[in-house]
Amino acid sequence: GPSIMPGGQKEAYEAARPIFEAVAARAGDAPCTAYLGPRSAGHYVKMVHNGIEYGVMQLIAETYALLKAVLGKSNQELADIYASWNDAELNSYLVEITSHIFRRRDEGGKSYLVDEILGEAEQLGTGMWTSQSAMDLHVPVPGIDIAVAMRSLSALEAQRKAAQSFLGPAYVPHPTDDETLSVEHIRRALYAGMIMTYAQGFAQLRVASNKLEYQLSLDDVARVWRGGCIIRAALLAGVERAFGGAPDLGNLLLDSEMAARVAERRKDLVRVAKAGASSGVPIPGLMTSLGYLDSFRAGWLPLNLVQAQRDYFGAHTYRRVDREGVFHTEWTGE
Amino acid sequence: GPSIMPGGQKEAYEAARPIFEAVAARAGDAPCTAYLGPRSAGHYVKMVHNGIEYGVMQLIAETYALLKAVLGKSNQELADIYASWNDAELNSYLVEITSHIFRRRDEGGKSYLVDEILGEAEQLGTGMWTSQSAMDLHVPVPGIDIAVAMRSLSALEAQRKAAQSFLGPAYVPHPTDDETLSVEHIRRALYAGMIMTYAQGFAQLRVASNKLEYQLSLDDVARVWRGGCIIRAALLAGVERAFGGAPDLGNLLLDSEMAARVAERRKDLVRVAKAGASSGVPIPGLMTSLGYLDSFRAGWLPLNLVQAQRDYFGAHTYRRVDREGVFHTEWTGE
Repeated sequence: GPSIMPGGQKEAYEAARPIFEAVAARAGDAPCTAYLGPRSAGHYVKMVHNGIEYGVMQLIAETYALLKAVLGKSNQELADIYASWNDAELNSYLVEITSHIFRRRDEGGKSYLVDEILGEAEQLGTGMWTSQSAMDLHVPVPGIDIAVAMRSLSALEAQRKAAQSFLGPAYVPHPTDDETLSVEHIRRALYAGMIMTYAQGFAQLRVASNKLEYQLSLDDVARVWRGGCIIRAALLAGVERAFGGAPDLGNLLLDSEMAARVAERRKDLVRVAKAGASSGVPIPGLMTSLGYLDSFRAGWLPLNLVQAQRDYFGAHTYRRVDREGVFHTEWTGE
Repeated sequence: GPSIMPGGQKEAYEAARPIFEAVAARAGDAPCTAYLGPRSAGHYVKMVHNGIEYGVMQLIAETYALLKAVLGKSNQELADIYASWNDAELNSYLVEITSHIFRRRDEGGKSYLVDEILGEAEQLGTGMWTSQSAMDLHVPVPGIDIAVAMRSLSALEAQRKAAQSFLGPAYVPHPTDDETLSVEHIRRALYAGMIMTYAQGFAQLRVASNKLEYQLSLDDVARVWRGGCIIRAALLAGVERAFGGAPDLGNLLLDSEMAARVAERRKDLVRVAKAGASSGVPIPGLMTSLGYLDSFRAGWLPLNLVQAQRDYFGAHTYRRVDREGVFHTEWTGE
């Protein structure tokens, strides 16, 4: 059943708590439930849960495309690969069910069911709402944005097929100009991308909690998400630890251990990005993960130029690095 | 003055038309004005104009980062590069003012003003509204989404600087494992990225016009945008021709000539993406352009897996490639 209670029902939650604790104790664990905060706090947390789910599903889909189109893996091999991934650091519900999906034969057993499924991904709106709310809050969640966009793009199959005659086909079977891409590179890139997708969702919850006064404990959120939900994953243990030790942490990448896990896998993201570029396999989610990582560690971003352009064409003013104040320049005068 | 009239003022526009035509005739051109459609049509077009503006500004900023950080160009060289770019196919207001900006010295002339500007890009909301509305309409505009996200990320300077100690710095000065990156590669990649940013905005206008009954003529929009607005650019001549010849065109990339311009520059986008990945220069906008191109020409996208996952965990059903109907599978049974 649902593990997240709607906000504003603190008393109801407290009344039911002994049941949750008894059930969890039988499994030798803590309850994966919590009172999250007042008003719409629980709904907001559930919405962001779904946004993270969109992002992770897009990343897994891209690893599928790479394994299939670049490395030529069969469905049986894919099932084994995702099953083995699920046995280590990538342990998660979504990776686990992915391995099950690739094992499933179509009725009659002649083919695999996954190959018969139309690739127009539908959406009920929660991923979109997550992106739209993040934009309102000025929180960058590019890994969720791109997942929402890719679901919409997947529905334009007729346009995509028509475009092939002009643009040439995607998926060059044997790109020759790249270093070798291995299953292990893809696995490590997915893990880094997953951490950054959670990082973006939790950063959104941090800002939402402050602006909407939800009083969220992000370690409670991580704990609740560790059981019974679609984005449950072993990596949430690290998330719970990070926010438990630093409740005001603004981003998971500011936790040294979580950041190290990502930094150690940057070279895998680079390898995967280059292979995707060379082979024509569209991997905008994994590339966006690399972009988020490199942007997040860039003390300087080139958006001083954007501010200059805004001041040039609209007198929107700018601030300076060397002194306080708000400035405007007549750029074409001297 | 504003070249786009609010919708719903057809009579006012017609009354003023002789003035517009007389002014344009003096310049030997057609008026860059039009009555666009009923109700909020003009406002919607202006909103998407600004979304395209966000996307193009992000792309130009990324070329600045590559030219500066990978190729080591000085501000004087940057001014010359953008000026020369403005003399050919990239001719546009935003490229032109970029060249002016790099020439501008700070007061006293000791340094260049652009280097003194704080890189926290602000936003008044129109880019965000464009992305949010595109999501509502299920139109993928990833080049605009990422520009909105990067403006928000640019404001997190304290977090980004703190993250460097964990994640390592961005911008590796001399990446050694890549083919040579040239100014020409960057120029051609920017042109392809710009075309795809316009393609996304016009695709959004096409769907918005249908759903909101704006009766937009997209060739009129292209013509209006050719003069007096921030995203005026030589490439809009091709856009006007494309929609003039095929008013119902769903995407610019379905016009053979515009598609050819992008396809011929795919190898430049690949080169730039690889160089950005290797050198740690964050170029999520250019990478997203490559992802959009490769997605748009991919007859198959791996989102059959996403549909399978949705059916697995939520019984959301799926459609099949081989027959009509809506299906659900108990994935763990046989």
